[in-house]
Amino acid sequence: MQKPSIPRGTRDFGPLQMAKRNYIFNTIREVYEQYGFAQLETPTMENLSVLTGKYGDEGDQLLFKVLNSGDFLSKTQAQDYSAGSKTMLTKISEKGLRYDLTVPFARYVVMHRNEISFPFKRYQIQPVWRADRPQRGRYREFYQCDADVVGTNSLLCEAEIIAMINEVFNGLKLSDFTIKLNNRKILVGITEVIGAEGKEADFCVAIDKLDKIGLDKVNEELIQRGFSQESIKLLKPVFEFEGTINDKLAFLKDYFSASETGLQGVKETEEILSHLQSYELEDNHLELDLTLARGLSYYTGTIFEVKANGVQIGSITGGGRYDNLTGVFGLKDISGVGISFGVDRIYDVLEELDLYPESTATQVQVMIVNFGEEMMNKGIALLQGLRKEGIRAEMYPDTAKMKKQMSYANNLNIPFVVLIGEDEIATGNYTLKNMIDGEQAAYKINDLISKIKNSR
Amino acid sequence: MQKPSIPRGTRDFGPLQMAKRNYIFNTIREVYEQYGFAQLETPTMENLSVLTGKYGDEGDQLLFKVLNSGDFLSKTQAQDYSAGSKTMLTKISEKGLRYDLTVPFARYVVMHRNEISFPFKRYQIQPVWRADRPQRGRYREFYQCDADVVGTNSLLCEAEIIAMINEVFNGLKLSDFTIKLNNRKILVGITEVIGAEGKEADFCVAIDKLDKIGLDKVNEELIQRGFSQESIKLLKPVFEFEGTINDKLAFLKDYFSASETGLQGVKETEEILSHLQSYELEDNHLELDLTLARGLSYYTGTIFEVKANGVQIGSITGGGRYDNLTGVFGLKDISGVGISFGVDRIYDVLEELDLYPESTATQVQVMIVNFGEEMMNKGIALLQGLRKEGIRAEMYPDTAKMKKQMSYANNLNIPFVVLIGEDEIATGNYTLKNMIDGEQAAYKINDLISKIKNSR
Repeated sequence: MQKPSIPRGTRDFGPLQMAKRNYIFNTIREVYEQYGFAQLETPTMENLSVLTGKYGDEGDQLLFKVLNSGDFLSKTQAQDYSAGSKTMLTKISEKGLRYDLTVPFARYVVMHRNEISFPFKRYQIQPVWRADRPQRGRYREFYQCDADVVGTNSLLCEAEIIAMINEVFNGLKLSDFTIKLNNRKILVGITEVIGAEGKEADFCVAIDKLDKIGLDKVNEELIQRGFSQESIKLLKPVFEFEGTINDKLAFLKDYFSASETGLQGVKETEEILSHLQSYELEDNHLELDLTLARGLSYYTGTIFEVKANGVQIGSITGGGRYDNLTGVFGLKDISGVGISFGVDRIYDVLEELDLYPESTATQVQVMIVNFGEEMMNKGIALLQGLRKEGIRAEMYPDTAKMKKQMSYANNLNIPFVVLIGEDEIATGNYTLKNMIDGEQAAYKINDLISKIKNSR
Repeated sequence: MQKPSIPRGTRDFGPLQMAKRNYIFNTIREVYEQYGFAQLETPTMENLSVLTGKYGDEGDQLLFKVLNSGDFLSKTQAQDYSAGSKTMLTKISEKGLRYDLTVPFARYVVMHRNEISFPFKRYQIQPVWRADRPQRGRYREFYQCDADVVGTNSLLCEAEIIAMINEVFNGLKLSDFTIKLNNRKILVGITEVIGAEGKEADFCVAIDKLDKIGLDKVNEELIQRGFSQESIKLLKPVFEFEGTINDKLAFLKDYFSASETGLQGVKETEEILSHLQSYELEDNHLELDLTLARGLSYYTGTIFEVKANGVQIGSITGGGRYDNLTGVFGLKDISGVGISFGVDRIYDVLEELDLYPESTATQVQVMIVNFGEEMMNKGIALLQGLRKEGIRAEMYPDTAKMKKQMSYANNLNIPFVVLIGEDEIATGNYTLKNMIDGEQAAYKINDLISKIKNSR
């Protein structure tokens, strides 16, 4: 008999994990909807023509490809086989699994551009697949939780996204987090000031590693990438400057006297901050991090990342503004800004900080003990009465020993158990047992309902 | 420039469709949870060793197979290529896409049998994939919405499932539906009585077509499948009997005088009906349909299907009891009963009968008109005030012409628009425009909030 297993890098989510995951998904979803984002779902499989070439060579390697149905070799010849996997692939596979939510979104916008009222605000919560080597915290199937606005340059959108980040993490009761903010135009400005114009890609790649390898190593890498000693010297004050956001912006205004792009980045940041004041957030958790670069090359304006302070884990949320998401599918000049919550990491953070509410540990609120056929119909009537009140209730289906029924309730973390025996039927009272403190008392139906409801 | 498309038989779900689909999903989910079912999610990809051979030869053909990552030809030789697709498949693909939710559930139960407290009540709402030829109403990717209880023979579970069906369709405001009920033991009993013992598989296949081809053709098919003229004659009273459920059960008790299995099926049905009385459903929508067979061979007890009356569409829900779901993975004697709501068909039924609530047409409840930079921060403050009250609100992000902003609100079905101009700031009143009746009036903030809330 085969012993079943699941593919490497994939996971089953049992009831307890699902309750915690749904708590995170629902919190994010509610904020997205409150802010006017509408949900979109795209197919799991996309045509490879849509996916290929959008994620770099490495990304193409990491796409899961789906075999054509039927006799998949029918379009091949022996010489295709001899030519190897790359040639064969084009003849035996036309579809692949979604690699992220961004490219399918761009495809959707282009295909539906005549029905969409721009600015288009959509959110999407779906799994994606990457044939990466599985390791701790890295899976081959994982969910993304994206929201994007496309079709407007308005910096109100950036402010809205920062407000949403605050609302989501406040909603999740995570209080110690930092939103690191920067702007690609500021990074371009820096390369201009230090005499390395046009080298912002190299610059971003190098400073992206600052956290990991430190300033000296970053400077070494910059030199290797062709930056001059003079550039490194001019860069020094940027890295060394400390102060509030306003201090940093004042410093940059001076620093960028010769860079219009840099000044534009400062102006955008100021406008976002000005909008944010009207949101009256108690603490906006913002930090202007001039070394924040973010890898993805398509960002062109504001970029941001969220760190859970005190937890050893990478960024738990990220995003930014891009100017040409749909260009690759032929629709030019659609600017947008997006955000992506990293649900798997947020899950781990809440676990480590023990921030899940009690409610995620309890699915069924009350179980009715099964005392045998004669009592069953009484039990069903009570069951329906409880459910009508919005209480999640079940009756143990078999007339099993009391101990077995109680241990079932215990294992499922069911907080209350109701006993209906002959006494109960005679008196019209039900015995309610609190499974947490062991307390047991008799109640009329209405008091029973209040007791269960109030314990939530 | 490539014109993007999506694979045949797959769909994008835009905001409006998602709102309607979520309405259905949430209704089902709430009932499942109210009845004590806990959510499970399994990976999209399963090992082919888990999937293959579980759905018959045709099913194996319809599995979407995923190419091994990297150089997928590395384990092949030229003679494998010459041997054809079947041989090649085993060397280049180890994973496939989930074909239903039942086999992954069985796999999960077997893998986690030591952690699970039986009876295990789980629900699962996830997409499945079948490489079927796409046609109207048949897709290559579609959602299933299953709930199963495993590890108990209790007929309370059948009663609970029938009650859930009632609650779901009542919740969806679908009033004209019929739950067709039968029992595989009744069908076995019939074959025994008509002298065709052991031929219940043939019997089920033939009578399954009764709706489509009529009694004469079914009889012809039975003859072809080796049933005698005498059998057909003995079968006649079963097909011809009309009456209430109780009439039918009384008829069967007599008919099954020589079939213990048949009598057992009658007894089970009576017990389920007796439980159901305690649920006090206004109308349980039940019909005992002695010709209901359901194709899947693994059913062993009660079977049921739901029909939306007056709509030309197949069954919208189905399920039944099985005795050996996990046997194929080495875990014997796990009896269970399950139900599956057909969301795509339910979607079409609600559409045809125009049963979606207004709320599914409206995502954003109010839009604040953007009158320019100076008014923006006033607008943001109002925006946040509305959102704190649970109202889904947005501000148009750009200072566009009034007409453009209004047409955006119209296209998105936003029922209210707020205007904040200089007048409004001077008086402290906001102008609220009802986009449906065109009515426009000035309100203090609290009245504005009530007005919007009460319109829901």
